[in-house]
Amino acid sequence: MRILVLGGDGYCGWPTALHLSRLDHDVAIVDSFQRRSWDHELGAQTLTPIRTLPERLRAWERVTSKSIESFVGDILDYEFLSGVVSEFAPEAVVHFAEQRSAPYSMIDRRHAVFSQVNNVVGTLNVLFAIKEFQPNCHLVKLGTMGEYGTPNIDIEEGFIRIQHNGREDVLPFPKQPGSFYHLSKVHDSHNIHFCCKIWGIRATDLNQGVVYGTVTNETELDAALVNRFDYDEVFGTALNRFCVQAAIEHPLTVYGKGGQTRGFLDIRDTVRCIELACLHPPTRGEFRVFNQFTEQFSVLELAEMVRVAGKRLGLNAVIDHLPDPRVEAEEHYYNAKHTKLSELGLKPHLLSESLLDSLVNIAVRHRDRVDTSLLMPRVDWRNSRNDLHAAKSVTVAAAAD
Amino acid sequence: MRILVLGGDGYCGWPTALHLSRLDHDVAIVDSFQRRSWDHELGAQTLTPIRTLPERLRAWERVTSKSIESFVGDILDYEFLSGVVSEFAPEAVVHFAEQRSAPYSMIDRRHAVFSQVNNVVGTLNVLFAIKEFQPNCHLVKLGTMGEYGTPNIDIEEGFIRIQHNGREDVLPFPKQPGSFYHLSKVHDSHNIHFCCKIWGIRATDLNQGVVYGTVTNETELDAALVNRFDYDEVFGTALNRFCVQAAIEHPLTVYGKGGQTRGFLDIRDTVRCIELACLHPPTRGEFRVFNQFTEQFSVLELAEMVRVAGKRLGLNAVIDHLPDPRVEAEEHYYNAKHTKLSELGLKPHLLSESLLDSLVNIAVRHRDRVDTSLLMPRVDWRNSRNDLHAAKSVTVAAAAD
Repeated sequence: MRILVLGGDGYCGWPTALHLSRLDHDVAIVDSFQRRSWDHELGAQTLTPIRTLPERLRAWERVTSKSIESFVGDILDYEFLSGVVSEFAPEAVVHFAEQRSAPYSMIDRRHAVFSQVNNVVGTLNVLFAIKEFQPNCHLVKLGTMGEYGTPNIDIEEGFIRIQHNGREDVLPFPKQPGSFYHLSKVHDSHNIHFCCKIWGIRATDLNQGVVYGTVTNETELDAALVNRFDYDEVFGTALNRFCVQAAIEHPLTVYGKGGQTRGFLDIRDTVRCIELACLHPPTRGEFRVFNQFTEQFSVLELAEMVRVAGKRLGLNAVIDHLPDPRVEAEEHYYNAKHTKLSELGLKPHLLSESLLDSLVNIAVRHRDRVDTSLLMPRVDWRNSRNDLHAAKSVTVAAAAD
Repeated sequence: MRILVLGGDGYCGWPTALHLSRLDHDVAIVDSFQRRSWDHELGAQTLTPIRTLPERLRAWERVTSKSIESFVGDILDYEFLSGVVSEFAPEAVVHFAEQRSAPYSMIDRRHAVFSQVNNVVGTLNVLFAIKEFQPNCHLVKLGTMGEYGTPNIDIEEGFIRIQHNGREDVLPFPKQPGSFYHLSKVHDSHNIHFCCKIWGIRATDLNQGVVYGTVTNETELDAALVNRFDYDEVFGTALNRFCVQAAIEHPLTVYGKGGQTRGFLDIRDTVRCIELACLHPPTRGEFRVFNQFTEQFSVLELAEMVRVAGKRLGLNAVIDHLPDPRVEAEEHYYNAKHTKLSELGLKPHLLSESLLDSLVNIAVRHRDRVDTSLLMPRVDWRNSRNDLHAAKSVTVAAAAD
């Protein structure tokens, strides 16, 4: 199958491109390297020393004799994107090419506007390019479980049957996203649903949980294939950040009570879910939603598991409850369905002691690369202007007193 | 009360500004005249000869001795908008400043992207400006009944109580918008709801039906105060367009079967609804939704009423069922609640024979200004590129054959 991976240089996109290539699909990557430039902006870097995309692709070819084509450009540039879609003629477009951090979108107005325009216009461009140049192509779009928020009822996969005043209908599940980033994904979902209806586009919206881990069967084939591992408060996902904090014996930063419950999955399941979605496309005009996660945990449960794993490795990590910088329920009902990907054949990698140990060990191996000034939350949802650089300087000054 | 009317030069904004000014509120208008420039782009003009904003404002002062301040600029320019909010210090911001035509948003990719970016970023800027410079200010935002689509259950006002698997919650009513424009309003609603939650902003989202009429108590005080009356297929709302078609004995253009049922209201009720929303603000942090319409009609019912009104005036109008250029249900269940504005005191102007006669008479009076090439639908939802100018030329050429 010809598969175009938008955002194929990123944390989920890179291992997905490798996984699909290893299975003998014709894979091409589109990336503008914006994710790398946000690291420059934030003064952050991945814990693992990732290589440039050309180095990565050369290593992949050396190790597997398979080649992955790359197109460097921004999907907001329609002339570029439509040219790629028309030239590569994909059967599936996997769309990871969005700004994916909630705190980044909450820094200030400029970052909020950027996140929404970047994500919404990028996805609109993808929809128009498919309609105009590859109408039979399947759009596999990364959404987020955060689109649903934390309603007091069970979360279904995209749609819910509602009975009301003696009538009933199956309607889109109500959305209560918790950041300008999560909002952008809700906007995308509505836009994609509409384009499926009017143009007969086929699309799968993958409402993904929080991803953890960094290694897949493919990334471990060569040091040059190593994947990102973000631990900063802006781009680091909770479990990965806790592992790095444990590795340097920094308190694990739980926001508020830590009763915030979310769906989580191993990055090895991310790449398999994308494969399953591609192999089983919806019909023309169908807008399909899968909840892509394998287990639910509260943030405090995760922190506790990492603390114990650290202890097994001789590390003395404690849990620190910080005032929650986000506006969210710190304790709530949460029960989200996630059967559709299992029905297609997903065999989940559940969170185990051995995986936790291996994650903490990766963090220990690279601990000389950790910048501790990036660990504490500096983006407060209640402020409309968060000056990350000012906050950092203030902390340093206070510590010097 | 100090009230800032964004988009105060437009079809709904202008009579709203006058109405609020007559009631002795301190009113200021913000406008960039983009609505007038879209007329230039489409080669269209309002049936009624509207004046420039300075002429309008001078006439208002001459007739009523009341003055309305104006700020000319684009709300996408945050420096401009935040300066106005900070200088004028409004207690309420009434936000009409959006691209409001579904067909305009469906012309092509460029118009779709423009409509969504313009509306979403404009509203984000308004939210940030309120948060940063006037946090107690009440945002009165124009949404649309089209956000809901046509579900097979009763439409509530913004929220619905859902019982599911033995639990229940009150959640945002599921949205199924039918154009890139309607989608932009759904995006706005989600963004506003979130900002109320995180920043304690108070907001009223007015899901307005299709507005008809052009005259209010204030616009008829002087010829220079005349309001827009759009009849072209892109910006003309259904009933107004039918009246113009009847006036020139052009077939009334019903799309498909005409069973499309929507909520409608008289423009005199629009201005009163805005007043009621301003006078009864929500509490800090509250996101309130009112369905702003007074009666439901199917498009065919409206066309039939206009046909009969034309007949009373000696005009021979027929109804023409065109292939529906939109992707929508042509027959469907529709029952939308609209009690909240009535509870605040709205006394609706229901659609009467005398009003229909007066609307057709206005159209007759200005019929020499009608450009018939603008009446037939040229924007097809099923196409991703609609070339309005090409279509027009083709029609002319065909007619010449």
